[in-house]
Order: sequence, then structure tokens, then C-alpha cells
Amino acid sequence: MQLSPSLSQLIEALRCLPGIGPKSAQRIAFHLLERDRDGGTQLGKALTKAMSQIGHCETCRTFSEVSVCDICLSVKRQDSRTLCVVESPTDVLAIEQTGQYQGLYFVLMGHLSPLDGIGPREIGLDLLERRLSEGNLDEVILATNPTVEGETTAHFIAELCHKYHVSPTRIAHGMPVGGELDLVDGQTLMHAFSGRRSI
Amino acid sequence: MQLSPSLSQLIEALRCLPGIGPKSAQRIAFHLLERDRDGGTQLGKALTKAMSQIGHCETCRTFSEVSVCDICLSVKRQDSRTLCVVESPTDVLAIEQTGQYQGLYFVLMGHLSPLDGIGPREIGLDLLERRLSEGNLDEVILATNPTVEGETTAHFIAELCHKYHVSPTRIAHGMPVGGELDLVDGQTLMHAFSGRRSI
Ligand SMILES: [Zn+2]
Ligand SMILES: [Zn+2]
Repeated sequence: MQLSPSLSQLIEALRCLPGIGPKSAQRIAFHLLERDRDGGTQLGKALTKAMSQIGHCETCRTFSEVSVCDICLSVKRQDSRTLCVVESPTDVLAIEQTGQYQGLYFVLMGHLSPLDGIGPREIGLDLLERRLSEGNLDEVILATNPTVEGETTAHFIAELCHKYHVSPTRIAHGMPVGGELDLVDGQTLMHAFSGRRSI
Repeated sequence: MQLSPSLSQLIEALRCLPGIGPKSAQRIAFHLLERDRDGGTQLGKALTKAMSQIGHCETCRTFSEVSVCDICLSVKRQDSRTLCVVESPTDVLAIEQTGQYQGLYFVLMGHLSPLDGIGPREIGLDLLERRLSEGNLDEVILATNPTVEGETTAHFIAELCHKYHVSPTRIAHGMPVGGELDLVDGQTLMHAFSGRRSI
């Protein structure tokens, strides 16, 4: 039996969702057709709009539908001399949810990965260098992930900061608050020891 | 921090997918924007098309983009005098995948459920009655689910068949092939006993 062409296409297209295999895709397609056509129609519109209209902020590279994003335009932050560099827009969300940081951001949309052809230009370091050169920054907080690639990227950007006499800092790595020593991984424990302070 | 409106709308719209909560919706939206815009765009188109263009076959009620579906139009099946009644188009798929059934189908798109306002008309029994009255059928195989509602629906349709002198049969329920006696549920075991045959 052949499924109707639009249904086959829908099942195939659903496979772009992370973690959705052929069986789940079929289940989702039938669920929407049988029980939630309005939801499916809304999702279709939202996807089409988001994929075509969401670009990147000209200043910080995060996702934005307008040329400069809300945070970069924010009156409270515009004069901040602190820039936090992160790998992805979700990192900005996570930091904003703490409500503690009032500075600006720069979103790399990835990390250096020469083997994958991702060099300084691909992660917007030309734009970051321009911002460093303008003399409006005192500190750059390097909040890339504590992975090999994240560390390499942080060190590369730190060099760039030195060139323009801006202080680079790296976020602390160690025990997560509330974590248990014997449950944390060895790398984190090592970071926690090497980053120890007098009390 | 506010997300850009199209992004918020996309995250909200993704919640129509079964089993997707707010966190997963956010993760999927960012995944598509960062890594698979083509996939997201294709999915948007496929959803919009499927939700608007997939209707029901005029003859058997299964999902179809054309007025009469492939199976109902199939030259090999058109003269079949056996009709298999199932609750949902996915049941048709499951039966077709066995490759053993060569007859026609009728898809109820649900089951009788008076408390939810789902009566004979809502599951297309007026259309089924018309087919029974035309005198082209010898047997109606009742393959609704072995649930209380499925059984009730099967018995209701069996009565309708008797009225038009068409033989209703019910698919067998019992031990799944390869199943283990001590792992199967009591209801199934009871069915397996009451449906026993001489060997
Ligand atoms: Zn921005
Ligand atoms: Zn049909």
C-alpha cells in the first residue's frame, strides 16, 4: 500500500526533528491529521515564517528578526563596557535567566573547528575584532563551553583581546552548586581543585 | 530577555507535537535554526500542504488526497466481496504490511463512544450501511481494537451486517505469536482460553 503523497512527504519531512525516527514520524503525522489539524497548520506557518525571517543581529550575531536585537539596543546595556562571548543563542537565554548579568553579548554560533572548516571568520571573529578595536570595551568574559573546542576558541579570542588591550576573563569551572563530589566527573573535579581559593 | 516573536511562536507551535514539552520545543527550534533550516522549511511546507489537502476517501474514509483512495480504486480489489473494518488508517497500514489481505477496507476514524458524543454517524456507519445495502459484500471482518469501545463498536456493526445478510466475523484474540504465557495480561489469556480449538 502506498500512502498518499502529501502524507509520505510529511512523514519524511518530520525526520528533520532531532530524535525522530520513521516510526515516531508516522505516529506524529497521523496524530496531527486525526486529532490536531489546527495545531499542525499553525506549526507549518510558524516554521515557514521562522526559517525565512529569523536572521542574525548585526552587532552580536544572536538570532534576530530585526537588524539589531533587543539586548544590543537596550538603553540599560548600550553603555556597558563588558562583553560576554558565548557559543550559542541558548547560552544567552541561560545567562539571562539568572538575571545577574547586565552587560552585552557576542554569540559565536559555534566554536573553532579547523577540521570541519570552521575558522575565525565562520564564528564572526572579524566582527568581534571590529568591536574590540572601537575602544568601548574593558572586559570580555569568555563563556564558551568547557570542552576542548570551547577552550581553544576561548584562548584564541583571549589573544585577540590582548591585541586591543581589553581584559579577557574565563568563567570559572568546578563543582556545580549542590553537586556531590563522588558523582561529578573527573575533569570537573580536576578543574575544581586547580581553581581552589583561600578561604 | 524576550525571544524574537517568530521564535517564540515557533516554540509555542511545536508544543502541538505529542510528547513535546516547553524545554524540548525550545531545543528543537534552536536545532532547526542553527543546523537545519532547509529541513525546517521543508517541514513547514509539508505540514501546510498535508493539513489542508489530505481529506478522506469517499468510499472507505481513510486519509486520501483524491476523492477515492488507491486501495478502493485498485483493479485487483474492486471486485472483492470482503470488507475489513478498522478504527484508524494506521490499522490499514499494519494489515497491508502483512501482505496477506487482498480485500477492501472501511476506516471508522474512531469507535463508538456515546459519552464523547461519538455515535454511529460520527464513525461513518451511514456510509457503511449504504455499502452493505448495495449487495456487493459477503463478509465483513471486524478488526476494531480489543478494547471495551472496540468490542461495542464491533457488535453494533455486526447487527448492521445481519440486517443486510452479510456475514460479520471478528478477528481472533489470544496469545501473540512468540509471546510467553506468564508475561501476557489476564484479559488476553482469558481470550486465548475461550477461543481454544481442537488440534
Ligand atoms: Zn544583538
Ligand atoms: Zn478508499
